[in-house]
Amino acid sequence: MKFSASGAAAIVGLGTTEFSKDSGRSEMRLAVEAVTAALQDAGIDPAEVDGMCTYMLDNNSEIDVFRNIGGRTLKFFSRISYGGGGACAPLQQAMMAVATGVAEVVVCYRAMNERSGLRFGQTTPPPAPESSVMFRHFHQMHGLMTAGAMMALPMRRYMHETGATSEDFFNYSRVARLHASTNPQAFFYGKPITRDEYMASRMIAEPFRLLDCCQESDGAVAVVVTSAERARARGPRPVLIRAAAQGAPATAMLCTSYYGADITPREECEVVAQQLYAMADLKPADIDVAIVYDHFGPTVLPALEGYGFCARGEAKDFIKNGNIEVGGTLPVNTHGGQLGEAYVHGMNGIAEAVRQLRGTAVNQVPGAENVLVTAGNGLPTSGMILGV
Amino acid sequence: MKFSASGAAAIVGLGTTEFSKDSGRSEMRLAVEAVTAALQDAGIDPAEVDGMCTYMLDNNSEIDVFRNIGGRTLKFFSRISYGGGGACAPLQQAMMAVATGVAEVVVCYRAMNERSGLRFGQTTPPPAPESSVMFRHFHQMHGLMTAGAMMALPMRRYMHETGATSEDFFNYSRVARLHASTNPQAFFYGKPITRDEYMASRMIAEPFRLLDCCQESDGAVAVVVTSAERARARGPRPVLIRAAAQGAPATAMLCTSYYGADITPREECEVVAQQLYAMADLKPADIDVAIVYDHFGPTVLPALEGYGFCARGEAKDFIKNGNIEVGGTLPVNTHGGQLGEAYVHGMNGIAEAVRQLRGTAVNQVPGAENVLVTAGNGLPTSGMILGV
Repeated sequence: MKFSASGAAAIVGLGTTEFSKDSGRSEMRLAVEAVTAALQDAGIDPAEVDGMCTYMLDNNSEIDVFRNIGGRTLKFFSRISYGGGGACAPLQQAMMAVATGVAEVVVCYRAMNERSGLRFGQTTPPPAPESSVMFRHFHQMHGLMTAGAMMALPMRRYMHETGATSEDFFNYSRVARLHASTNPQAFFYGKPITRDEYMASRMIAEPFRLLDCCQESDGAVAVVVTSAERARARGPRPVLIRAAAQGAPATAMLCTSYYGADITPREECEVVAQQLYAMADLKPADIDVAIVYDHFGPTVLPALEGYGFCARGEAKDFIKNGNIEVGGTLPVNTHGGQLGEAYVHGMNGIAEAVRQLRGTAVNQVPGAENVLVTAGNGLPTSGMILGV
Repeated sequence: MKFSASGAAAIVGLGTTEFSKDSGRSEMRLAVEAVTAALQDAGIDPAEVDGMCTYMLDNNSEIDVFRNIGGRTLKFFSRISYGGGGACAPLQQAMMAVATGVAEVVVCYRAMNERSGLRFGQTTPPPAPESSVMFRHFHQMHGLMTAGAMMALPMRRYMHETGATSEDFFNYSRVARLHASTNPQAFFYGKPITRDEYMASRMIAEPFRLLDCCQESDGAVAVVVTSAERARARGPRPVLIRAAAQGAPATAMLCTSYYGADITPREECEVVAQQLYAMADLKPADIDVAIVYDHFGPTVLPALEGYGFCARGEAKDFIKNGNIEVGGTLPVNTHGGQLGEAYVHGMNGIAEAVRQLRGTAVNQVPGAENVLVTAGNGLPTSGMILGV
C-alpha cells in the first residue's frame, strides 16, 4: 500500500485584498495584506509559518514576503512555472510539504498589479524565465504576443471540431457575469450582461470577443495550508485537499501547444483529471461545484470535457439552460470567474472553492462537499479537488 | 508516528556534459545531453519520466526539456528560487513527489552557458523574477552588482569575528585545486596551486581574491530520482536521499543578508543542518564526505561551522593540515569544488556525492556511506544527506 497525501493537508486560512484596476500600492504590500489576512483567518501566528509557495511570475520574493509578515524561520519554498497553468500547483506543493513533514504551516500567495502595472493583455514580452527560448523564437517573433492571440488558434480548432459558435461562448460569459453580479467582491458586481451586449463587444483575437476575455486586475490572494490533524483540532469540517495534480502532454507549450495530434486545450486537463479522481477516489458526478479556469471563457468548454463532465464536443450543450448556474447540475465559477470577479491567476477561484466548502459563498451551493478547481489550459496545467 | 520521506527516494541516474568556458551549443542542448545521459545511466526509458525539477535561473523550460528528451506525459514540475542557495532543493522536490506518489521518475537538471553566455561575475543585472524589488532597489543600485561584491561584506565580518585571514582562505583553495588536479573532468585538472600563486592572485572584492572565486562555467548536470523500492530492484546499495531540507532565517536576502544580528553566512546553514540530521537520524561525526558549496572558497568556513563540524570560529583550524583532504577526518569537495571542477550551481557537487557513494569517484574516500551536500550560503539555502 503506497502512501497517499489525499486528505493529509487542509486549507485553514484565506485572505484577499480588494480586486481593482488600480490598487494604488505595491505588489509586496498586496501580498503582505493577503497573507496577513489569511493567517488571521486561520488563527495562526506568522511566527509559525515555515513554508512559502508561489508562481514563477510573482514579483514578490518568498523570503521578502516571509520577513514582512513577521515570519521567523523558513523551511520550505518553491515556485511553479506556466502562469495560470500552475494555479493549483502551489497548493500541491503545500500538500506534499505538510504530508511529508517538511513544513507545518505553508502559505501560498499570488499578488499582482496586473492592470496598473505590467498588463498581460498588452504586447509586452513576458519576463524571460517564464517564456522559454522556444516560445520567444518560434511564436512571439511572429506576432503571437498575447495569451489571447495564442489561445485563439486552438479555440478556432475546437469550434471546427465541435460546431461550437459564439452563441455557445456567450452561454458561458453570461453565467460568469450573472454570478459576478451578485458578488460584492467582483469587479462586475451588479453588472450582468445580455446577449446583445456580448455580440456587440469587439473582437480581441477571433474568436475571442472582449466579453470572452478575463479581466486584467490588481489584487492578491493567499491561503494557509496545514495538516488535517491540526485543522481538525481547530474545528469541524476543515477544507481538505483531497487531491492535487499537475499535468501536460509532451506536446504542451506555453499557450502555443500547436504541434500535437489534437491541438484543442483538452488533453492536459485529462492528464490532471485522471490523477485527481484516482487520488480522491471520486468521479465527475461527485463534484458539487467546479471552479474552471477562464482566462478566456470559451476555454471552459474543452476543460469541462477534459474533466469528464460531458463527452468530447458536448460542452456546448452541457452549459445551456442554467446547467452551470447555481441550481444546475454543476454550478461553475460561482464567484463570477476571472471574467466577472477578477483575474488573480486562478487563486481567486481557489478562494471561492474554500468559501463554498465553508458555506460562506455569496452564491452558495447548498451542501457542497466536493469542489473541483482547475487551472489554465492550453499549457502545462494543474488541478485540485477540495472537500469537507 | 509521522510519515517521513527519509530513504523513500533514491538517485539512480547521473549525467553530465563536459565543463568548459565555451560549450559551443545551446543551453537546451546541454540540458538534453545531461538528462539523456542520466536516464541511460539509470537504465530508464525517457517515456517513463513524469517529473522535471529545476531552478528559477535555468533558461530551459521544463516542458521543452521534457519534450526534447522524448518524454510522454509530465505529471510534476517545479522550480526553486535563490540561485545556488537552491542547489539541493530540486532533489527535495523529487523526494517529496516520489514519497507521496505524485511522480515516479523525476529528473532534476541545471544547464547553463554561464561563461560564454550571461556571466554572473559581470555587472549585468540578474533576470528580474530571481531578484526581488528589495534586492534591486536597496543593493544593486548602490553598486553591489555581483555575488562577489555582496558576499564580501559578511565574510569581512566573519574575519573580524573569528580572526580568519587570507592564509586560512588559502587553505581551502589549495585543497579544492588539489582535488581538482587529479580529476580529469575538472577545468583545473593537473593544475594545483601554491601559496605564492594564491597570494599573488588579484583582489576581486576584498577579501576575495581571484583564486577564492568559483569559476564561470558552461555545462549541465542531471540526476534521476525514483523510489527506493525501484532502485533496490535494480541493484544493491542504491544512493538514497536520507534527508533533504531548505532553510532561511527571516533576515535572509539574496546574498545581501546584512540586517540580522549575525550577518555571517552561518545561520541558514544551521537551520538546514538541524533538519537534515534529525531527518536522517545522523550527526556530523557520521558524515564521511562533505560537498560544501563554494561560490567563494572562504564561505566554506562558516558553512562547516553551521553544519556542526566544528565550533563557531574554529573552521580555520579545522581545515588545516590535510583534515579536509582525502585521508583527513572530513574530506571536502573531493571533485575540486566549484573553484576547481566547474560551477554548475552546485549540481556538479551532487554528482560527486553520488559518485562517492557508488565508489566511482576519482578521489574516492574508501567506504563512504553518508555524504552531506550543501548549497550556497548567505541566502536562503538547502542541503541533503545522501547515503547507501
